[in-house]
Amino acid sequence: MPKVERPRGTRDFKPEEMGKRRALEERFRASFASYGYREVATPTFEHTDLFEMKSGEGVKQQIYHFKDKGDRDLALRPELTAPVLRFYVNELSREPKPLKLFYFGPCFRYEEPQKGRYREFWQFGLELIGPSGPEADAEAIGVAHAALSATGLKNFHLHVGHIGVLRALVAATGLAGKDAGEIFRRIDKDDRGLEDFLAERKVDARLAGAIAAVATHKRRLVLGDEEGAPRAVEEYFAEALTAVKPGVSTEVFRGVEANIARLKEMLGYLATYGVGSLEMDLGVARGLDYYTGVVFEFEAPELGAEKQIGGGGAYALAELFGGEPVGSVGFGLGFDRILLALEKEGRAPAVPPAVELYIAALTDAARVAALELASALRKEGLRVDVDLMRRKLAKNLDYASGLGAPFVAILGEKELAQGIATLRNMKSGEQREVKLAELARAIRGK
Amino acid sequence: MPKVERPRGTRDFKPEEMGKRRALEERFRASFASYGYREVATPTFEHTDLFEMKSGEGVKQQIYHFKDKGDRDLALRPELTAPVLRFYVNELSREPKPLKLFYFGPCFRYEEPQKGRYREFWQFGLELIGPSGPEADAEAIGVAHAALSATGLKNFHLHVGHIGVLRALVAATGLAGKDAGEIFRRIDKDDRGLEDFLAERKVDARLAGAIAAVATHKRRLVLGDEEGAPRAVEEYFAEALTAVKPGVSTEVFRGVEANIARLKEMLGYLATYGVGSLEMDLGVARGLDYYTGVVFEFEAPELGAEKQIGGGGAYALAELFGGEPVGSVGFGLGFDRILLALEKEGRAPAVPPAVELYIAALTDAARVAALELASALRKEGLRVDVDLMRRKLAKNLDYASGLGAPFVAILGEKELAQGIATLRNMKSGEQREVKLAELARAIRGK
Repeated sequence: MPKVERPRGTRDFKPEEMGKRRALEERFRASFASYGYREVATPTFEHTDLFEMKSGEGVKQQIYHFKDKGDRDLALRPELTAPVLRFYVNELSREPKPLKLFYFGPCFRYEEPQKGRYREFWQFGLELIGPSGPEADAEAIGVAHAALSATGLKNFHLHVGHIGVLRALVAATGLAGKDAGEIFRRIDKDDRGLEDFLAERKVDARLAGAIAAVATHKRRLVLGDEEGAPRAVEEYFAEALTAVKPGVSTEVFRGVEANIARLKEMLGYLATYGVGSLEMDLGVARGLDYYTGVVFEFEAPELGAEKQIGGGGAYALAELFGGEPVGSVGFGLGFDRILLALEKEGRAPAVPPAVELYIAALTDAARVAALELASALRKEGLRVDVDLMRRKLAKNLDYASGLGAPFVAILGEKELAQGIATLRNMKSGEQREVKLAELARAIRGK
Repeated sequence: MPKVERPRGTRDFKPEEMGKRRALEERFRASFASYGYREVATPTFEHTDLFEMKSGEGVKQQIYHFKDKGDRDLALRPELTAPVLRFYVNELSREPKPLKLFYFGPCFRYEEPQKGRYREFWQFGLELIGPSGPEADAEAIGVAHAALSATGLKNFHLHVGHIGVLRALVAATGLAGKDAGEIFRRIDKDDRGLEDFLAERKVDARLAGAIAAVATHKRRLVLGDEEGAPRAVEEYFAEALTAVKPGVSTEVFRGVEANIARLKEMLGYLATYGVGSLEMDLGVARGLDYYTGVVFEFEAPELGAEKQIGGGGAYALAELFGGEPVGSVGFGLGFDRILLALEKEGRAPAVPPAVELYIAALTDAARVAALELASALRKEGLRVDVDLMRRKLAKNLDYASGLGAPFVAILGEKELAQGIATLRNMKSGEQREVKLAELARAIRGK
């Protein structure tokens, strides 16, 4: 009979891998909880509409969607922000603000599988709903940064931008629709044709110069008290304003100034979250329309082409889903890639051995006694396994060794008669007799 | 704009509910781990074939299945045993035995939603692969029972049977296929027409009598040391043998005797797992063909029509999926229903408040100090929230009270100058000044 294979692009997780994953999940949960965020969950599938409303009709090319028996068009969720905002609009909009939510679960995309890219993958995400302002922006970035740090990951970079600066300049060109989109596309791709395109569309040369200058205005900024750091931050933003000023009206300039002031204030708060430095990039042109302000991304450079491990920003989605406008900023983190990055750094969570004690009975009479001993020790909080296959001692020792059990308790005729067990230390091979009542302590004491 | 609704039969989980669910998950995980079981995971969808091989073509009527863009027929998993055995056959069959696996995740069925019955529901499950024998059977039942007890659930019943006894008798009728299926169906439904059907099919009257007797032979048995209990167990099985003997050949009788001896031995081991009593029922006729021996179910009577909270048995699936035959016994537990039963008993896990401390700044100058204080206290392990909306103190206190925060720290001009916080006990309303360095202790000490 031919074997049934796992569907292409999906994974099975063995115990060792699953142990790491659950431990990593707990690190994230504890970190989010320490900031007062609480977990929510939404269904694995949604009406396909929801994702089309957020990302456009084209999203159907990249997702699993199907008709159910009731002729509903359903989609396996490709991401978690839209479902959580749908949940917010339907059921949580009257909760006191700020509403601090996080979530974790599998997401699905129909794309070519490769290392770090699967058809079923796991994401953590977080939304801060209610406040909008520099504190809220700093909180979202700061909590993402803190959570990544809490996983143990060392080598990751933070990129921060503000969608508002570039948008104000592009709006000033008078171009809209496809032409505006083309400008963002060329900026996003670092396309050399940006200036030609602006000239072709007869954008004023000074405004075109301002756009080109902002699009490439990026620099590593150090936060906190390092010598010269605060001055470097001031200089970076002053240069941006100098580049913009000649190309735009006073009104547009004031708007850019306000966004930059907000970013600077945000950096002040961000330092309190333990963010030591970041790549500031006013040319971030995240294509998606629903972003409204600060935008950010995290990269783990060791992952190469799949180095993006998270991203987010301030956005407006509630009104898109039929709710009232509300301040919202959030992010998603790629759980699988973060674990991959931790593995590369040798910092993936260590998984304890399956059991702390394995019990082997030498005789039929000792079998029930072995089960009773196991029960008693589990009540004391130990993880205990017992031979269920009536194997000889040598086979039992092999098996226990394979499990990584640090101790084996042996029960035979003599042990039964005396109310003891022979306790074998699997590392040293040393054996000694221990009273049953003292076994838990003997195991823990080592 | 119309709101997008959640798909029919699915649920969103609010923070309170999700807190309970995660706490309940942890109780299950800790319980399974204490027996040496390790977690595995499989994809959310599988090739539809897999479920047809296990449960027949008819299963497609009850599940979500669809073609992906590569024309694969995929199904959202309706249960977890088939995927885990598929995983075993493909990748784990050479691991040392016993292989002790558990798993948790969402499953999907297209059926009419009602209380305790959803289109997306969660299941825990466990498989013991390798051993087959009374110890293995007792282990599976005992671990399920221990896990249910570990959740805090008190009012649940265990029903145990053995598929082999009834099958041996039905085989002795010479009836097979649809006719045999009809016998099992009538037994399963407690159908009064069983004896008529047997007569109609010209089954020997003594054999028909044996079948009818076994089909209704159920009794509550007490395990362990209670007075008279061991004798009652002996009597129950002796009666079964007496009822069977006149209707069958010596060979069939020996088979029944062997199965019953195995059940009795199993009960002896089961007592060591803390199972105090059970409903023994030799008429359990779980329809599914892949069960091979002991079968069991757990019920929470308070749940009414949806009272079944779990079930399992010894089964043969590996060979169905293209692997070598291997001893296997396991079970599934309905996570949602168990939580529902715990709620009815008032024993659902208690969820701690979102934060242990809320910090409110009274002035702009105190805002950064408040964020720094929050960071410092989180490093000490506290869950801390900070005002991100620049609200007045009264509003902040309302919000903190809504969160259930036991303490609020207030930072104003005076506090900043003196390096202290005003700490408000939200229960008593009492306020006192505490040095920043002593805040964590003051909060924990209460």
